[in-house]
Amino acid sequence: MTRSDAAPSEGEPIVAIATPVGVGALAVVRMSGSGVFDIADRVFSKAREPERPLAESPGYTAHFGRLYDGDSLVDEVIVLVFRAPNSFTMENMVEITCHGGPVVTKHVLKLLLDNGCRLAEPGEFTRRAFLNGRIDLLQAEAIGEMIHARSESAYRTAVNQMKGSLSGRLSELRDRLLQSRAMLELELDFSEEDVEFQSRDELSEQVDALQREVTELVDSYQHGRLLSEGVATAIIGRPNAGKSTLLNALLGEERAIVSHMPGTTRDYIEECFIYRNTMFRLTDTAGLREAVEEIEHEGIRRSYEKIAGADLILYMIDISEDDVDEEIPTISRISAEYPGTKLLVVANKIDRILEAPERMEAIRSACGCAVLGISALQEDGLAGLREEMNAMTRDLDKLHDASVLVTSMRHYEALRNAQDALQNARELIDAREETELVAFELRSALDYIGEITGRVVNEEVLNMIFDRFCIGK
Amino acid sequence: MTRSDAAPSEGEPIVAIATPVGVGALAVVRMSGSGVFDIADRVFSKAREPERPLAESPGYTAHFGRLYDGDSLVDEVIVLVFRAPNSFTMENMVEITCHGGPVVTKHVLKLLLDNGCRLAEPGEFTRRAFLNGRIDLLQAEAIGEMIHARSESAYRTAVNQMKGSLSGRLSELRDRLLQSRAMLELELDFSEEDVEFQSRDELSEQVDALQREVTELVDSYQHGRLLSEGVATAIIGRPNAGKSTLLNALLGEERAIVSHMPGTTRDYIEECFIYRNTMFRLTDTAGLREAVEEIEHEGIRRSYEKIAGADLILYMIDISEDDVDEEIPTISRISAEYPGTKLLVVANKIDRILEAPERMEAIRSACGCAVLGISALQEDGLAGLREEMNAMTRDLDKLHDASVLVTSMRHYEALRNAQDALQNARELIDAREETELVAFELRSALDYIGEITGRVVNEEVLNMIFDRFCIGK
Repeated sequence: MTRSDAAPSEGEPIVAIATPVGVGALAVVRMSGSGVFDIADRVFSKAREPERPLAESPGYTAHFGRLYDGDSLVDEVIVLVFRAPNSFTMENMVEITCHGGPVVTKHVLKLLLDNGCRLAEPGEFTRRAFLNGRIDLLQAEAIGEMIHARSESAYRTAVNQMKGSLSGRLSELRDRLLQSRAMLELELDFSEEDVEFQSRDELSEQVDALQREVTELVDSYQHGRLLSEGVATAIIGRPNAGKSTLLNALLGEERAIVSHMPGTTRDYIEECFIYRNTMFRLTDTAGLREAVEEIEHEGIRRSYEKIAGADLILYMIDISEDDVDEEIPTISRISAEYPGTKLLVVANKIDRILEAPERMEAIRSACGCAVLGISALQEDGLAGLREEMNAMTRDLDKLHDASVLVTSMRHYEALRNAQDALQNARELIDAREETELVAFELRSALDYIGEITGRVVNEEVLNMIFDRFCIGK
Repeated sequence: MTRSDAAPSEGEPIVAIATPVGVGALAVVRMSGSGVFDIADRVFSKAREPERPLAESPGYTAHFGRLYDGDSLVDEVIVLVFRAPNSFTMENMVEITCHGGPVVTKHVLKLLLDNGCRLAEPGEFTRRAFLNGRIDLLQAEAIGEMIHARSESAYRTAVNQMKGSLSGRLSELRDRLLQSRAMLELELDFSEEDVEFQSRDELSEQVDALQREVTELVDSYQHGRLLSEGVATAIIGRPNAGKSTLLNALLGEERAIVSHMPGTTRDYIEECFIYRNTMFRLTDTAGLREAVEEIEHEGIRRSYEKIAGADLILYMIDISEDDVDEEIPTISRISAEYPGTKLLVVANKIDRILEAPERMEAIRSACGCAVLGISALQEDGLAGLREEMNAMTRDLDKLHDASVLVTSMRHYEALRNAQDALQNARELIDAREETELVAFELRSALDYIGEITGRVVNEEVLNMIFDRFCIGK
């Protein structure tokens, strides 16, 4: 499927509550599609000025009046008119600002449903904006990221993507790829004459340059992911080491604010806290807590998946247990198996035993990793722990100043595919293989990059992206 | 303090997030007061069309563009311009529709705070709308009620009040009172000549008519209050009668939906459920649960306050207890002391004992009140209980079809005062007392009615009303 570059077609009229659910002064109910002005005119009665139907009002005008369900007043509202193509969806749109209570908002929604709209699917407004060419897929995703942003840095990343930094970079890459490919295809047209419009050395250089840039973007993903998803942190350790207590202490008051937020783009519940602008995401904690037992009983491999996704492992030990040094082999194994993952040994219950410092030093020198003493129950040493977690993960931010970042797994995978295709092209050129084969790889690279911005996209990818949106966006 | 009828004065610029907090597609941040166009112009950059400052844009126009904090993009937004006096507050206003995530919304708010706005107090926008004469106090309160409405009927009542049904009725009353008083004051001016511009009989009739109408409004309060506040229901009974189990069973799944809703206009936590459009409000349950013990230990008087506020008492007994008939005197006493309150004896644990029907019949005939058997634990008989609660309280709705209802305690009290003043006036006329005394009472009645719509109002009342609003309204 290719996105239409023709005039936008008007979809059937859809409606949704666009503002968060709850008690507030105002709420916005929006409609888009064919006939929305007529629907609004049927239920809206303008308060001031000579009555002119909304259908005849210019775009970007607001109108004060009342919504009626038959004779029955529903609410006093402001109605905003957007005429195609100058609207978010590029269709005719009406945005109704009503009072913000849950009951009144539902009444307004029901009124519009009763008058010919159907309820919008999640992300359907943004999907129409994309399909009609108002924004590319990257910008559509940026809107979703912005709405769900829970940290300053995730918000900042989404703003950059909305601005089109990555779109611009990819579009430039695409142009250069197109150029190289066009030369090759020209050669193919003249294939019988065996001309070379471009020296193979020149082409090699071009592909090299493209590959370097794609690689740079691929490499930016680790940082981008940290910004948008936070530092995946696993707290593991034996039963009764104090993992739950530490978890609760780390989350502290923040828990209510940042965790269990509804409508996030992920399927599982996360516990998050933000320290110095870095979000730490304690992922799938229940599973990770059990990881060590599994490591001990069934070997380290079995737990690969649970720990492999973590950026940072907090390995908790109960320093007051006399057999604490028996954990040394496990710690050493984890450290050796996951060289890319940061490992911090957290020695809990330091208040329970005088020999705590000696025991910690023994583990430190045996395992060669950082050991930090705390008392989770007394909430002692937690400030130091947060600081250490921050210090240890700061260098995950290799490209902190990069202006263009890849933050989405989808983009990352497409870029990795493009990278592979370019690598193949490079090898084919070196091997003096058929021009046709080289052209094929360059075309693949082009398609992969096109997938990101949505130039080349299939229904399945669109569903995956927009189903994660909330209704009303 | 009297509300200004002069041209509205522009207050200092205020700003607030007007939509509910949370994740949603859109959020609205609104500003009102002097200089808000300049503030918006400093941070807003219009996307299309020749740049014209918002300060020069006509009212009721919308503008698409970007908000910048210095060079840094904050969000893509729609800016709506309202020019004084054609705005909600009658001041210059700007409403910014931005993306709906908590982080982005806070950024927009902060940007406007940094550029010269101060954060609005709760209800400050509505307060300005009232002070500038755009709405009366009744309508201001209706907006609050509408936002917080949790049931269909509370919403409907708020809509009627917003429409101004009660305002209109009161204004008509006021006009007639003014007329009668004017006549009397004219007589006072000519007092030495001892003229009577109006026969005392005529005046009596006028005051009678006014009194009837005020009484009708006063009487509508019970129904109005039920609509807006729900049926105050007290569950009382001895410890272990099963009160908590019943409470939880009644609330059932509804609990999560209607209870603990933040930002309500009341100071205490309520547990509510809605059955057939009637809201039952289990008020101050903890206290009421203990009421019976206090009744038994310290006499019925001490518990007066706890039970007196209830529309419906559910008196729970454990029918399986052999000494259950010892409760008969207490039930009879409550029934006698609160003839206006509906009393239903709920016989719990009917599944535990075969003699339940006989025991229930004994209580029914001894106390002369309704007795209903249930098993709270087995959730047996709950449907019947809800139905009975509904049937018993339906006749509290004496004036169900009344178009004008008094729903607020504040209005009720002012009307009661007006009623008293009119009664005094009537008695003074009958006793052929001084014209001056009659005129004084009529003036009092006028002032009391003026208090309701806000014609005569003091700062304290305003604070009481607007402090309950949420910020942004």
